Amino acid sequence: MVSSQEGLGRSEKINDIISAAQIRFGLYGIEKTSMQEISSDLNMSKGSLYYYFPDKEHLYKAVVEKEQSEFISILNEKINQIDDPVLLLEEYVKTRLVYFRSLMNLSRLRLESYSEIRPLISDVLIKFRKNEKEIIMNIFRDGNEKKIFKIEDIDETASLFLDLLRGLRVTMINKMKLLYIGQEEYDMIMKKTISFTNIFIKGLKYR
Amino acid sequence: MVSSQEGLGRSEKINDIISAAQIRFGLYGIEKTSMQEISSDLNMSKGSLYYYFPDKEHLYKAVVEKEQSEFISILNEKINQIDDPVLLLEEYVKTRLVYFRSLMNLSRLRLESYSEIRPLISDVLIKFRKNEKEIIMNIFRDGNEKKIFKIEDIDETASLFLDLLRGLRVTMINKMKLLYIGQEEYDMIMKKTISFTNIFIKGLKYR
Repeated sequence: MVSSQEGLGRSEKINDIISAAQIRFGLYGIEKTSMQEISSDLNMSKGSLYYYFPDKEHLYKAVVEKEQSEFISILNEKINQIDDPVLLLEEYVKTRLVYFRSLMNLSRLRLESYSEIRPLISDVLIKFRKNEKEIIMNIFRDGNEKKIFKIEDIDETASLFLDLLRGLRVTMINKMKLLYIGQEEYDMIMKKTISFTNIFIKGLKYR
Repeated sequence: MVSSQEGLGRSEKINDIISAAQIRFGLYGIEKTSMQEISSDLNMSKGSLYYYFPDKEHLYKAVVEKEQSEFISILNEKINQIDDPVLLLEEYVKTRLVYFRSLMNLSRLRLESYSEIRPLISDVLIKFRKNEKEIIMNIFRDGNEKKIFKIEDIDETASLFLDLLRGLRVTMINKMKLLYIGQEEYDMIMKKTISFTNIFIKGLKYR
């Protein structure tokens, strides 16, 4: 079973690399992190690192994917624990912002550089948005069934809700030169997001 | 009274120039319009045009200001005609999108060029946003007094409402290469904006 053991070793190595990169990117951003530093953190030669990831951008993409799946599993855990669709939506928007902040701080890019790196992760983002919409649609559907919400077009309203949340994030980001979310920006966007969610949820209610 | 007549002639001339530029910019965008073309439209020498406006950017700024004050007066007319704050908000969001479309199509810029021209009109935009917020706050206040709305923080909720509307516009624009709002994009953003406004208004209601 050598080949299977080799396979396991390989995927463990890849996970270690991604975790090390996740820490480095989170602390210093993608631009200020070198492949050399990541390989040093792992006591690995630079050549070995390049064997697994052809460049820093591919490694960045892998970290983004990891953070996305972490977000989705935290969310699924909450979905299993929480029965009330209103509470669930509130939990969703908060968790979503934690993830947003972490994602932004991973890149810590100037706005111009972000538009360069974005195409690289666009397929990852598209997949993520699909997942996210499914989750929101399920919460809406559940709320309709429980006669808590009265939503006519579940699909459209889920897109609208996500667009509005994204809009709040994007308008904030557009004011920034460096894509780094400090505590002040985070508190501000959190406050706005929660106010919005409360009004929106009230607007969806059955009565 | 020679000096007063001269003054009048000057401001009439300036208005003529701004109107001609408004038409040209609206049809072809700022980049594809030359000062030569605007002066030809007016049977004016290029030199005379430059006497009134030192460059195309200053003329663009004047056109933006004109469109803004047109928007504000249309809005004030509606405010005088319509008593119901709910109807008024609906009218506001629709009129705001008409103005947005017209403003975007005036510049018809690539997204990169817009970030260059934006600083030029930033003071105009700040003044406009202040006006806009005042108008929304007044509608909210009126709704509270009429026991149609129950809004705790008028100031914050007005900012939030405007941020959310802006967010819908910005997320749409961010997908575009050229800042030109065709019928399809317009219909799409109008639909989203109206759905959002209906839910948001319901969320503000007194009950």
